[in-house]
Amino acid sequence: MPTVDRWLLPDGIDEVLPAEAARIESARRRLLDLFSAWGYDLVITPHIEYLESLLTGTGHDLQLQTFQVIDQLSGRMLGLRADITPQVARIDAHTLKRDEPSRLCYCGSVLHTRPRPLSTARSLIQLGAELYGDASSASDIEIISLMLETLAVCGVPDVHLDIGHVGIYRGLVQAAGLDEATEQALFDALQRKALDEVQTLVAGVGQGQIAAMLCSLVDLAGDRSVLDRAHALLDGAPEMVLAALDDLAEVSAALQSAYPHIPLYFDLGELRGYHYHTGMVFAAFVPGAGQSIAQGGRYDEIGRDFGRARPATGFSTDMRLLVERGHCESPAPESIWAPQTTQPGLLQAIRELRARGERVIAALPGQPDSAAAMHGCTRMLRLIDGHWQVRELNS
Amino acid sequence: MPTVDRWLLPDGIDEVLPAEAARIESARRRLLDLFSAWGYDLVITPHIEYLESLLTGTGHDLQLQTFQVIDQLSGRMLGLRADITPQVARIDAHTLKRDEPSRLCYCGSVLHTRPRPLSTARSLIQLGAELYGDASSASDIEIISLMLETLAVCGVPDVHLDIGHVGIYRGLVQAAGLDEATEQALFDALQRKALDEVQTLVAGVGQGQIAAMLCSLVDLAGDRSVLDRAHALLDGAPEMVLAALDDLAEVSAALQSAYPHIPLYFDLGELRGYHYHTGMVFAAFVPGAGQSIAQGGRYDEIGRDFGRARPATGFSTDMRLLVERGHCESPAPESIWAPQTTQPGLLQAIRELRARGERVIAALPGQPDSAAAMHGCTRMLRLIDGHWQVRELNS
Repeated sequence: MPTVDRWLLPDGIDEVLPAEAARIESARRRLLDLFSAWGYDLVITPHIEYLESLLTGTGHDLQLQTFQVIDQLSGRMLGLRADITPQVARIDAHTLKRDEPSRLCYCGSVLHTRPRPLSTARSLIQLGAELYGDASSASDIEIISLMLETLAVCGVPDVHLDIGHVGIYRGLVQAAGLDEATEQALFDALQRKALDEVQTLVAGVGQGQIAAMLCSLVDLAGDRSVLDRAHALLDGAPEMVLAALDDLAEVSAALQSAYPHIPLYFDLGELRGYHYHTGMVFAAFVPGAGQSIAQGGRYDEIGRDFGRARPATGFSTDMRLLVERGHCESPAPESIWAPQTTQPGLLQAIRELRARGERVIAALPGQPDSAAAMHGCTRMLRLIDGHWQVRELNS
Repeated sequence: MPTVDRWLLPDGIDEVLPAEAARIESARRRLLDLFSAWGYDLVITPHIEYLESLLTGTGHDLQLQTFQVIDQLSGRMLGLRADITPQVARIDAHTLKRDEPSRLCYCGSVLHTRPRPLSTARSLIQLGAELYGDASSASDIEIISLMLETLAVCGVPDVHLDIGHVGIYRGLVQAAGLDEATEQALFDALQRKALDEVQTLVAGVGQGQIAAMLCSLVDLAGDRSVLDRAHALLDGAPEMVLAALDDLAEVSAALQSAYPHIPLYFDLGELRGYHYHTGMVFAAFVPGAGQSIAQGGRYDEIGRDFGRARPATGFSTDMRLLVERGHCESPAPESIWAPQTTQPGLLQAIRELRARGERVIAALPGQPDSAAAMHGCTRMLRLIDGHWQVRELNS
């Protein structure tokens, strides 16, 4: 590699320079403090582990996204984490083993072999929170509320929330008794909201009633009135479907009361993460971005691979996206310049200023005081009447 | 992999549970604030990049330590960072391109294919600071001081500091004009302080004078008196050697004045990182640990591979080791329990408490108030005279 190219970074892999890093660090602290105020404990998970452990639960879909290396010590295959959620589920299921509900949060980078749809990034700083051990809607309400508070703390404007529930589609499909190939085709058609295809695929199923219900999912998207239409259109649907509608009604009423300014959008055909989600799914969007800025859902089977299935609901987001879309300003510190001198007392003066939280830049040999402004200093230390004192730069 | 083994982590790869994670997060914030007070700007470097970029400068020795994967997008070899220093050097040399000195710091995990000597860990949380653009001893004094302040902030007791300077050995070896095989053997012998071997290898070199000087390095280790003995034993040595001794005298005098309680230990035959270090090398030790707790040195050629060599000096440490060895207590927050109820006003009361920095755990359906203590609560919200008020748990 010629010297001139050594600084190149792989596509989608970025370094973060001081101005953005300061904003991310500031947002990180405020968000971890927010999570702590809600009772969520920070955990730090490894960047690398046995591939089979990573590709569990919500990680099943991540095989192609996960970088793989051989462990020289064990000869076994390791994966670089592409998602932190399965790791936190392991900590809940295996390490902590609490009977009570537990609340955990995390913040760390994840790597993807290829960018996700609508994105170019292969390296994200994933931040999230998970609530284990409670299957009720109260947990979904808490997690969605915490997601909305996260966006508010970062000053992300014009947020709207999409909500769905995979129990609706799952309940109908079970009742329909489709063969696997037809079910897969139906799943694809529904994701594309291709009504013609859905109609063809379900024609004649369940004396036509279940077929009509499956077709109706294509249109059951929009504001809160969707829930009323759903109650009419899905009248007589299997228990699982009706329970899902009740969940949606309960959660949306609570959110509307606590966050009246956040528009809710319902999509009963939404099947994001269908393969691992088991209940409510939700995502926050902002105008002008195709991908969600934060997302999550319920996945009650997540601990099973670690020997202990626990109800779970959680959300995650990307710190860089948050900081880019929000208004997390971290004002540049107003530094104090300390001139290069052997005068006694200067070191002590610098030490006291720093202990008070001031940022002091010590001049290095050959640096004139005129370099102070270039280093972000607005003030400097001057020896006046035998004492080191802080003065404006140009005073 | 059987379910029962899925929770196993590879040897040397750890997860960090809430109590330790809280201590690490607390130490991390205090240290990044310390670095900021000294004028160091945070940067965030990628976890993965082209292998050739990682194995530059101080990274040359890291090839065997670096996990390697193929990039599916470019077909090229990528490495997982085993050290953050070469990445920060790239940011200084290529991205920031300042003419003035720059001060950068970082905190992030690194991975090693095998544990380092005297350690079992393959995953460290590396924290460090780097000063670029100044070749004088003032920079070494600043960086070593910041390293000692780092240990002090974390409450690490009984620190002692080892100092050496690779210019002494380098100057003598250049004057000796040894062939490469002999020089390599000499390097090995000196590292083991094997005087007999050193004597045999240098016999007859430079009319005996340089040979005697090289042999004396084996013994030139100990307290400050070593510098006086060195001035006598190395009298007439090449200019580079004498300049190194002057550097050591200047730096140690400044450190002794600023940190009189820290014992200094000099080792003029110390060659840690000889292949990339170009000047002062230093390491902090605590009793009972074979490996250093923090270490660093000068490596003035570090930016060359990115097209711009700049003088540089820096140090790094491992957050987990710091927290383990220090006294960074992060007291468990005294949480407030909020009962499960539909009584109005509770949500608002919780919101206000959290905004004031309190940690409030909201009970989930079926959780009795007797679960409060299990969740670390010492107080709870009670509805008294129509107002939600915070009361002791057992009042």
